[in-house]
Amino acid sequence: MSRSPQAIELDPVQFVLDEETASNSSHTESLLGRHSPSSSDEKQSTSAAGAASNRPRILIPTRDMIAAAAGRRREAPSHVKTVVVGLLGLLALAYGVTSLLSLGSRFGGAPSVRVILMISDGMGPASETMSREFLQYLHDTRSVDGGSLLNGSVWATLAGGFERDGFGLTPLDEMLVGASRTRSSNSLVTDSAAGATAFSCGIKTYNGAIGVEPAEKKPCGTVLEAARRQGFLTGLVSTSRITHATPASFYAHVVDRDLESEIASFLVGTGPRGPSVDIALGGGECFFLPNSTKGSCRTDGEDMLAKAEELDVTLLRGMNDLRAWHDGDGHEGGRVLGLFARDHMSYEIDRQQNSVLENEQPSLKEMASHALQYLENASAGGKGFFLMVEGSRIDMAGHNNDPVGHLSDMLAYHEAVRFVKEWVDKSNEEGTPCVLISVSDHETGGLSLGRQLTTKYPEYAWYPDALLNATHSTEHLGALVAANSSATRDWLRSEIYGRGLGITDVTEKEIDELWPHRKTAYWSNRVLADAISRRAQIGWSSAGHSGVDVNLYAYGFNASGIAGNRENTEIGSYIEHAMGLNLDVVTMELNKDLAWHSTSAGKSPQTTQRRTEVKHYHGDF
Amino acid sequence: MSRSPQAIELDPVQFVLDEETASNSSHTESLLGRHSPSSSDEKQSTSAAGAASNRPRILIPTRDMIAAAAGRRREAPSHVKTVVVGLLGLLALAYGVTSLLSLGSRFGGAPSVRVILMISDGMGPASETMSREFLQYLHDTRSVDGGSLLNGSVWATLAGGFERDGFGLTPLDEMLVGASRTRSSNSLVTDSAAGATAFSCGIKTYNGAIGVEPAEKKPCGTVLEAARRQGFLTGLVSTSRITHATPASFYAHVVDRDLESEIASFLVGTGPRGPSVDIALGGGECFFLPNSTKGSCRTDGEDMLAKAEELDVTLLRGMNDLRAWHDGDGHEGGRVLGLFARDHMSYEIDRQQNSVLENEQPSLKEMASHALQYLENASAGGKGFFLMVEGSRIDMAGHNNDPVGHLSDMLAYHEAVRFVKEWVDKSNEEGTPCVLISVSDHETGGLSLGRQLTTKYPEYAWYPDALLNATHSTEHLGALVAANSSATRDWLRSEIYGRGLGITDVTEKEIDELWPHRKTAYWSNRVLADAISRRAQIGWSSAGHSGVDVNLYAYGFNASGIAGNRENTEIGSYIEHAMGLNLDVVTMELNKDLAWHSTSAGKSPQTTQRRTEVKHYHGDF
Repeated sequence: MSRSPQAIELDPVQFVLDEETASNSSHTESLLGRHSPSSSDEKQSTSAAGAASNRPRILIPTRDMIAAAAGRRREAPSHVKTVVVGLLGLLALAYGVTSLLSLGSRFGGAPSVRVILMISDGMGPASETMSREFLQYLHDTRSVDGGSLLNGSVWATLAGGFERDGFGLTPLDEMLVGASRTRSSNSLVTDSAAGATAFSCGIKTYNGAIGVEPAEKKPCGTVLEAARRQGFLTGLVSTSRITHATPASFYAHVVDRDLESEIASFLVGTGPRGPSVDIALGGGECFFLPNSTKGSCRTDGEDMLAKAEELDVTLLRGMNDLRAWHDGDGHEGGRVLGLFARDHMSYEIDRQQNSVLENEQPSLKEMASHALQYLENASAGGKGFFLMVEGSRIDMAGHNNDPVGHLSDMLAYHEAVRFVKEWVDKSNEEGTPCVLISVSDHETGGLSLGRQLTTKYPEYAWYPDALLNATHSTEHLGALVAANSSATRDWLRSEIYGRGLGITDVTEKEIDELWPHRKTAYWSNRVLADAISRRAQIGWSSAGHSGVDVNLYAYGFNASGIAGNRENTEIGSYIEHAMGLNLDVVTMELNKDLAWHSTSAGKSPQTTQRRTEVKHYHGDF
Repeated sequence: MSRSPQAIELDPVQFVLDEETASNSSHTESLLGRHSPSSSDEKQSTSAAGAASNRPRILIPTRDMIAAAAGRRREAPSHVKTVVVGLLGLLALAYGVTSLLSLGSRFGGAPSVRVILMISDGMGPASETMSREFLQYLHDTRSVDGGSLLNGSVWATLAGGFERDGFGLTPLDEMLVGASRTRSSNSLVTDSAAGATAFSCGIKTYNGAIGVEPAEKKPCGTVLEAARRQGFLTGLVSTSRITHATPASFYAHVVDRDLESEIASFLVGTGPRGPSVDIALGGGECFFLPNSTKGSCRTDGEDMLAKAEELDVTLLRGMNDLRAWHDGDGHEGGRVLGLFARDHMSYEIDRQQNSVLENEQPSLKEMASHALQYLENASAGGKGFFLMVEGSRIDMAGHNNDPVGHLSDMLAYHEAVRFVKEWVDKSNEEGTPCVLISVSDHETGGLSLGRQLTTKYPEYAWYPDALLNATHSTEHLGALVAANSSATRDWLRSEIYGRGLGITDVTEKEIDELWPHRKTAYWSNRVLADAISRRAQIGWSSAGHSGVDVNLYAYGFNASGIAGNRENTEIGSYIEHAMGLNLDVVTMELNKDLAWHSTSAGKSPQTTQRRTEVKHYHGDF
């Protein structure tokens, strides 16, 4: 495996700005996406400005230093401090001795570390409860009437691994460590671009921003870029288009998430810094095809797949390629780009019900498995890797207010988490420190496990049984409805409500409601989603995102280091620390010559006239 | 302070059933609210049954033993285990040495321990995010335009303590340790009775059950009763009627939460076990007045206040009594019952806007402060105490879908938490181990921080500014509307929407909507709540509860012992362990003679025909 030539040009920890750059320190601050101290904390600003003016060369403050200055994190009660003081000396001794006995031979040698960040896009706290309680319901159902209720249910396969968990908790439940605050720099409700940039750059930015800071929309270095620069391998797995906001925020720098044609060039490696991703698996082939090709989504005639091949990238287009690569020596190295769908990949429940799709698209777990195998092999003897794995379409089902697609892809995500946890165990057992973080960027849909259907005082219940006989996402069913120009009311009743959603008691009024929308896939989907949501007695407040804190999960090496209620930016900082990365150096390098970067491309970020920005929020970003 | 005569009749740890009781082991199981193992886990059941049949005398399995059998809790990765083995010996040494140096003089002497359980009734994850973001908004607003926006806002006082927190987190944010699963034994959505009985008895029961198990509706011993039995002092603080479901579940045993006349007798101490609560402060005087008295809520003519006086209970009726008691030697001991409202106490925002109420009712923080002062003094030299403090009306505002009342009582709760945390620090510094747990029993309202108002793609935002100029809960305003028989549209516009909610852009259509409901306090309240919720762009899915996991917070001595995703019953078990309690002994004592107990009183629990119960759920309850 060849490493990128630009890796480790400078000692990342001791890196000092050259004079030219240092002379413009306020510019540096804006590059790093930080508030001018004078606007947020007068006391700090005085000393900081004084120090800067006395020094011709300044050390770039790392996120560490900023976090330390912000200080005051979950202090222990004083009596504990007393005890801690007593314990510290002995612990240091103990640690030293134990290192010699045990750690030295395992972690003492190579500075190898593996960080896997899994992102459950759009999965809020209620979604996790819903997953668990639906799985518990399936588990229970299996033991009633010889499991006859479950016979023929498509969920039997999706819930397969749950049996092994025994006590009715999901793989995530067992690794809950806290929560993540999700607000962006310009709204209390983030989008996926700002949400992922918080993880990748460790900064708050505006909704729509891909790897750029909010003040001047200039690029910010990401953990993925810094990792590769410092000799780690890097990987991305996503069930959305691989150029979609979440994965893009780890390797691209554009001012608007919709600039996916530009984003694709960053992934292929024709961007300003060359390649930064060693392996990327997901959907979204259409943004790699020239706009002269049918099915292309590009705004230009560039053939990004041809460019990728010029750069010796191994292309995997569909399952056959993936299998052949796996059976060959594919896992041995070289950059890899796997694209398994023109657009987003299918919901897991739809994929499993369609043998054509099943032979075109791998599951999230399969992609994660291939990526891990590749990264393990290719980084052997090296520094380890950073891998991001996104369950992208949990979010999209939330946007549709579709409990079927939402559950489908949450169960697929849990299955991937279960696999990755075992992999993490193995890595740590074998002596390579490995940590898994799982977190959402935000909640989607305003899901509630309880819904009042009449003005009568509500029942205290939600009903997983209403979802048991569904066989497809409502997005799939909406498309089916719109594609059938000769759809009849009977067909809707039997094929769509009946076979599609397992609804046997559809009313004439409900058919009436669907009828005028039957030519439109999206609105058919929404009407169907509402029908099954009402039966399950679950509520949704929006087709967009909501602002609730999301659950934070961690597992493996130093998992407790990220415990508690955290700003989403702290997840980026945690990865930075875990891998010893210096993002600021990447930021500086990206900003040395910005000829490639347009701050006026795409849409302007939407800002509201109302006061939601909380500009002076003294949080740690 | 005299201790109750029945305390410590038996060694609680070594207590063994007498033969008469032991002969009916399946009865024992049902008393303890546990599933027959044979129905849930065949392997376990075989050995358990075998062991039982060979022994004429059986040890009651403690919740400890059951939890240990359930086992398999958040296992560390194996490499960590290796390190842990290496560290353990040295840690033991270190602990021993440090104990001698520091702990011995502090925690080594008396077996004193203090457990404070705070319950934020109906506060889900979105509610905590809402509190924080609203406080951040107020904080920001204060620094804009010389704080003019905040001038005159009632929130300035309510947010007072927040300034001290500096970085924009609530007192709870800094102590997040995990989440609590809330389902009851008969629904995925619990009510407060089953929710509180999970905390008090450590068992799952049906919705509506107060301190009774679900199989035969027989009493279960609570942590409060066990604590007092073993020599601890006990206290309850609540802003609802003190006979309401949450506090009642700690001291009463009735099959239906609506049996509040019976519940009051348990509190006064005329119940089957005599008194169990040393100090109780809250609302609900009406259930202590004979039904011959105007304003009584009792179903009978018993004068429970007279009975309390016969039992030497100090009665505090209103703030004057509380102040006189405080200024006298009141904090020195003897049982205390403080009742500060006929029904529920007022929302904090309404209390602060009404000088009469302010002179009748203490705040939650004030009640907590008095209770802690009393318990500290009265337990001096003894075993410490158990105190439950409930922010009851957070839930009730959720039922009304009223963001104003909801925020009001959440801020009051946070203020109480801030006070209690400082108290916990002091206790631990002074050498008495003290832990604070804060948790909700369930979410209420299906609150979502994001709401789609039109079919247009939703904005990604919610708007705290819409709440800034509200001055009263919508419950208060709805009552005002209904009380004004000569209400005009102009009066509704200016006094209710305008001065009441700070809504200056009310539409004719909105007045039309309120008009037909103007004689009904409840529906006026609901219409008003919706008007301000829409402006804040927050959604609600129900006037009832929802099933989402709720946040779990802990602070102080061994706070990390309850970290992670927990069944709500584990909170009860945690308290049991922290205080070394034996609940099973209390359960046995309660069940020796059940002449006092009617299993057919009140309403039958509502069960659904649909399969939501997940009877075979293998969780740890």
